[in-house]
Amino acid sequence: MLRTNLGQRIPDGMRDLLPEELVVQERLEEEILALFRQWSYQKVLTPTLEYTACVQPDIEQDDSLYKFFDREGRILALRPELTMSIARLVSTRMRGGDFPLRLCYGADVYRNTAVRHREFRQVGVELVGSDQELADAEVIALAVEAIAGLGLKNYQFNLGHMGIFSGLMLEAGVDEGLQSKLEEALARKDMVGVERWVSQSRLPTRVQELLLRLPHFHGGEEILDEVLDWSERPAIQEAVERLRKIYRYLNYFGVQENVSLDLGILRGFSYYTGAVFEGYVPGMGFPVVEGGRYDTLYSDFGVSLPATGFAIHLGTLLEQFPLSSTESADILVYGSDAEQVIRQCQALRAKGKRVEMVLGRIESDVAQKMAFQKHIPEILCV
Amino acid sequence: MLRTNLGQRIPDGMRDLLPEELVVQERLEEEILALFRQWSYQKVLTPTLEYTACVQPDIEQDDSLYKFFDREGRILALRPELTMSIARLVSTRMRGGDFPLRLCYGADVYRNTAVRHREFRQVGVELVGSDQELADAEVIALAVEAIAGLGLKNYQFNLGHMGIFSGLMLEAGVDEGLQSKLEEALARKDMVGVERWVSQSRLPTRVQELLLRLPHFHGGEEILDEVLDWSERPAIQEAVERLRKIYRYLNYFGVQENVSLDLGILRGFSYYTGAVFEGYVPGMGFPVVEGGRYDTLYSDFGVSLPATGFAIHLGTLLEQFPLSSTESADILVYGSDAEQVIRQCQALRAKGKRVEMVLGRIESDVAQKMAFQKHIPEILCV
Repeated sequence: MLRTNLGQRIPDGMRDLLPEELVVQERLEEEILALFRQWSYQKVLTPTLEYTACVQPDIEQDDSLYKFFDREGRILALRPELTMSIARLVSTRMRGGDFPLRLCYGADVYRNTAVRHREFRQVGVELVGSDQELADAEVIALAVEAIAGLGLKNYQFNLGHMGIFSGLMLEAGVDEGLQSKLEEALARKDMVGVERWVSQSRLPTRVQELLLRLPHFHGGEEILDEVLDWSERPAIQEAVERLRKIYRYLNYFGVQENVSLDLGILRGFSYYTGAVFEGYVPGMGFPVVEGGRYDTLYSDFGVSLPATGFAIHLGTLLEQFPLSSTESADILVYGSDAEQVIRQCQALRAKGKRVEMVLGRIESDVAQKMAFQKHIPEILCV
Repeated sequence: MLRTNLGQRIPDGMRDLLPEELVVQERLEEEILALFRQWSYQKVLTPTLEYTACVQPDIEQDDSLYKFFDREGRILALRPELTMSIARLVSTRMRGGDFPLRLCYGADVYRNTAVRHREFRQVGVELVGSDQELADAEVIALAVEAIAGLGLKNYQFNLGHMGIFSGLMLEAGVDEGLQSKLEEALARKDMVGVERWVSQSRLPTRVQELLLRLPHFHGGEEILDEVLDWSERPAIQEAVERLRKIYRYLNYFGVQENVSLDLGILRGFSYYTGAVFEGYVPGMGFPVVEGGRYDTLYSDFGVSLPATGFAIHLGTLLEQFPLSSTESADILVYGSDAEQVIRQCQALRAKGKRVEMVLGRIESDVAQKMAFQKHIPEILCV
């Protein structure tokens, strides 16, 4: 049936991957997953569809899910990421596993927003069942090595801790409403918004100054001491000391020079509870790696397990790499007798050759042109 | 936020793949795609979401699509298969390609039905731009080799042609309504239905007999001569001679012994126009391979190109294979000094070892138990 104009188009935010594009994405994904395996992570796969009650339990929250009803009227969503699906999986079929459990994935995720790509490839890891700083450091170091392994230059990771901001809010007696507005503005790095909320806050001048400075606490271990000058609240102290330990471990992993401490990293409305980190590459205005610790998410699924992990937005990284030339066949086989052509192709394939068979009779000049256009180095006429 | 019971469940028809399951699916897919590459097919990927107007233009037709609205009120669907999406791709971005074009894919497809798996992996090929019998034979031989290469025993392929049934209908003067009912019943191999429609048809006895015999025309070249005894209509003759040629080519490909001619193969409501085939493996009551020629589909997308191809329902084949044991790390590293443990792990990884790092201090008996449970052959205490 003839397609309408719409029926001949690709939906907004979707893309096709041609051979020369797909080759690049698959090569990057294979390299990263090989690294994950080397660090003893095992690959799992969850379904594209989840109940919205799994991936977005708070129905009042604004979200960017692709949602629809199943036959029984329950709301399904295309997975927006893998962490919650893997928490569902671990808390059910993998509940009896040997913790800590190291899992990894490579899968497409979906966001129904106005951005250019609404379906994109993500690869990532989940390290489930350890609350040690060493676990945080392991996943951060692994994320850095994954990006470094792709050959990207001048990448930069920032590392913060959710507990520092929330501790400061507690210390200053900021109410919940203002806190979430501030957190959201900080998470979006919306400094105009931060300034507006701070100036309207009637908080003590000292706290106002601190909030405005928070996004600029960026550097090495020295900024941790500065935070302790501001507050000695146990919650803040604990967060600072955890960050300090993780940061030192990163030195032992050999990746510290690519990681800065950054106390302005926050994730509004997220499940992160501890150390959080982001990775950037030049020319891309948003993080290509996002990760951190989420110690309460698993208890939402009925098993109390600390966890940490990250996701690399592989699909968005793709444009950083030149298109690959696709592999061509080794040899083009043609001739006037179909039986001979077929038998010759099969014999060459049995020897491991990559063979393209000409369909129908052609002259030798046509065969030469065909081989040239398809980058096939050898021609055989039988 | 605590998940409801629903939020802790996997949706009906969906499944998680644990490491030992995913390893099997990925190995099968890699083997098949390596074969496709050897036959000079190039891999492409289309998006999960398509406009329903692309994959199901006839809105009156009953379908099993997962459908929903986008932000502009257009109806989107999860791809039910790849052939139409690739036709959309070829007729747009690949329109200037070197035809015949050999494309292949490995992707998840979605069917909103009551069956056990509503998301499953498909791998397949599209050979676009050739109307030669050699093209049909190539894709059939490739499908047979793909199934054979998986090590499956006693697989069976059946090969038919859409033109034989439609030619007979024309010859007998069967009206369109009855034809589509008969075609649907035959396609579903619903013999009770076929008998009911035939007996109500008031067709000449000779045609009634033929229709009832159609599903039993199964075997080698001899059944083609039998068809010619019934009718010498040019359309039927042409279909028969095309089948004969394809079947002989399969002999040259060395796969004929696994393929039977079967004139009862039909595909109700499908885009197939010529030779059609199905592959079966013992113990599975539905085809695991489906393919054939579709010479009018591309003109529905504005480019007139003949095409043929097939899909292997890899996800459903999975249960034919034993679970694989997942690869374990080569060595478990533990110790009381985090710096030494980290540095040792990194040194071993640099040498290509797959290393699992113990998080936190443990005693040697605990380390031994851990290595045993995780099937890690070597332990290092630093």
